[in-house]
Amino acid sequence: MRLTPAVELEYRCHKLQEYMQSALLDAVIIVQNADLFYFTGTVQSGNLYVPASGQPLYLVRKDAGRARMESGLKEVVPFGSIKDIPAVLAQYGYPLPKRIGLELDVLPVNFYKRYCGLFPNADFSDATPLVRKVRMIKSHYEIHLMKDAADQVDLVYRRAREVIRVGKTDIDVAAELEYAARKDGHQGLIRMRGFNSDICYGQIFSGTDSAVPAYADTPLGGMGLNPSFGQGAGLKRIEAHEPVIIDFAGCVDGYLCDQTRVFFVGKPSDRLRHAYDDMLEIQALMMRVVEVGMSWGTLYDICQSRAVQMGYADNFMGATGSQVSFIGHGLGIEIDEYPFIARGFHHMLLEEGMTFAFEPKAVFPGEGAIGIENTFYLSNEGFKRLTHSADELVILN
Amino acid sequence: MRLTPAVELEYRCHKLQEYMQSALLDAVIIVQNADLFYFTGTVQSGNLYVPASGQPLYLVRKDAGRARMESGLKEVVPFGSIKDIPAVLAQYGYPLPKRIGLELDVLPVNFYKRYCGLFPNADFSDATPLVRKVRMIKSHYEIHLMKDAADQVDLVYRRAREVIRVGKTDIDVAAELEYAARKDGHQGLIRMRGFNSDICYGQIFSGTDSAVPAYADTPLGGMGLNPSFGQGAGLKRIEAHEPVIIDFAGCVDGYLCDQTRVFFVGKPSDRLRHAYDDMLEIQALMMRVVEVGMSWGTLYDICQSRAVQMGYADNFMGATGSQVSFIGHGLGIEIDEYPFIARGFHHMLLEEGMTFAFEPKAVFPGEGAIGIENTFYLSNEGFKRLTHSADELVILN
Repeated sequence: MRLTPAVELEYRCHKLQEYMQSALLDAVIIVQNADLFYFTGTVQSGNLYVPASGQPLYLVRKDAGRARMESGLKEVVPFGSIKDIPAVLAQYGYPLPKRIGLELDVLPVNFYKRYCGLFPNADFSDATPLVRKVRMIKSHYEIHLMKDAADQVDLVYRRAREVIRVGKTDIDVAAELEYAARKDGHQGLIRMRGFNSDICYGQIFSGTDSAVPAYADTPLGGMGLNPSFGQGAGLKRIEAHEPVIIDFAGCVDGYLCDQTRVFFVGKPSDRLRHAYDDMLEIQALMMRVVEVGMSWGTLYDICQSRAVQMGYADNFMGATGSQVSFIGHGLGIEIDEYPFIARGFHHMLLEEGMTFAFEPKAVFPGEGAIGIENTFYLSNEGFKRLTHSADELVILN
Repeated sequence: MRLTPAVELEYRCHKLQEYMQSALLDAVIIVQNADLFYFTGTVQSGNLYVPASGQPLYLVRKDAGRARMESGLKEVVPFGSIKDIPAVLAQYGYPLPKRIGLELDVLPVNFYKRYCGLFPNADFSDATPLVRKVRMIKSHYEIHLMKDAADQVDLVYRRAREVIRVGKTDIDVAAELEYAARKDGHQGLIRMRGFNSDICYGQIFSGTDSAVPAYADTPLGGMGLNPSFGQGAGLKRIEAHEPVIIDFAGCVDGYLCDQTRVFFVGKPSDRLRHAYDDMLEIQALMMRVVEVGMSWGTLYDICQSRAVQMGYADNFMGATGSQVSFIGHGLGIEIDEYPFIARGFHHMLLEEGMTFAFEPKAVFPGEGAIGIENTFYLSNEGFKRLTHSADELVILN
């Protein structure tokens, strides 16, 4: 079990405070678990009060002892509820904040109203864009953890070569691979920020099921086991000559890596083989053109146009009617972080230290899906790949 | 894969409309996945518009085809975004609502603001208490699914007898049991409504780790694998004569059952053996006194007082400083539904059709935790138990 070094936490808080000063915020109150983990090094039931300058206060209801043990922050303050915040601020000589940032993309309304009642004279705004901007630049420490997650997805990939067989169900394959990841120390939980985003390790499905759209904001969907969680692996049996998609998120010590590979028992059809080569070409194109300073939307447009030019207007990133508007997504603690390699993001630029998964995929309804996904890193020594399983289609006998 | 019968959906919607009329709401807009599943029979990316009377409209962005296939609702309407809602209402001849209910306990602020912008002259209030009241009364169809989930946790319990061994780690045991559940059709995802509530199948831990408090609103916590998800199974190795807690939520076709059993390799200490018998006695007390019409808080008070009288003031439902204020929780689609067998709920009454998990547990820091959990049902033929594994401590050799 690795604890986030105190210097990491200090740097992260300092960056957030820089953004807060530009945004004229007096305080940001961090409430959501992924952000708490990032800024405190632990997840406890509590709030992190970050003033525009000075020490952040980690107010912890349960469990303060663990917060002291696991967090490198100097000030861990036991509290009963958010009603105690003004008194704690007074105790530390901190002024009452007038402009407060909260994570308004995830904070439920009823909680928000309590903060409004607590600071009746304050203005509230959304702190999440600032938090996302801090979090999108990964430190070497974070990259180190993501590399461990990349090793975990490679282990899953190698296990997939052993367990995919004709006649097995998709859920059987999913169970085997999740088991392998869990034995390797996968925490079981994938953090996804978006409201209503359900996820369980990833998405594993074969043939026609891999081409079924679902509610998830992902290029592929899948039937799932039931309409309560109608995505991912279902009860379909694997047949020869059809694609088996293994889209799996490794997670080690809270950090993710995302990878997709496609397996066939026997030969793929010419169409799918050809489409796979084309998706590899889009990956190669992305790797050739990507650079610091390019906008997220431009990188998306270049790759999207190439896919359309290749003839995939009705198949790329979903079949017509179910297409998603991104080809890549940042990841780290959550699987939907900045940057979004997505339509329209022309005002946001790629920066050194960013990581993102890039997943060109094509969907052919009634036949199946195909594509590739790797996790990449814009390091100060150039563009690197974190996931490292072989890119080739895996043909099993 | 079972589809929710249309008559179930009609009845549920009708009940909600009754509560809406009492609360003088013109419309409730259902947005959250668990509620969507309950009222539509599927989870798609969309909104369910429920007028105070008349047909509900299921507005679906992705995927309308699946919504039509999986939902028994008459009106599935493809839409692009919530901006289209007023036009759809006009098309159906529905008036613009003036008093609108939204799920304010889960809906993030940024989404809420979009609804406020869409209906600038409307009053908004929290529809979740109404939704919870509909959902807390289970139909025979729902009980049938929960019985399947009870069979699944029994399968996990039987597998636990085989895999718990001295020298194995808690995470190894968790991996084996999750694998067994997954092969049995567990959907992998446990729905928990509370903001920031993380859960992965349940909580599995041994000895001292079982007595470690965590951020979760659960009587036991556990170390977990890392501070990003610091609860549940960690790397501790099982030793002889210490408790191994298997608290597991089965999930079949979207419905849950929750059960806890305690295993020992070799004999337990006198203190833990004695405490286990006392927790069984509290379960027996609950089963003796529970009845339709009793308040949730009264049932809690009776059992809590008995625990204190027995000498567990510092151990019951957590060790001092980390105690939770409930002994039981409703469950069905989510693991934290009405009723709450919890402190203070004297205004809410037990009703026929309710299901809840009851989990008297005692925590001894530095030694371990012990207790039992079963899922119960207030049927029209009396109080019944859904989970059916043997209640005895399991002593393995």
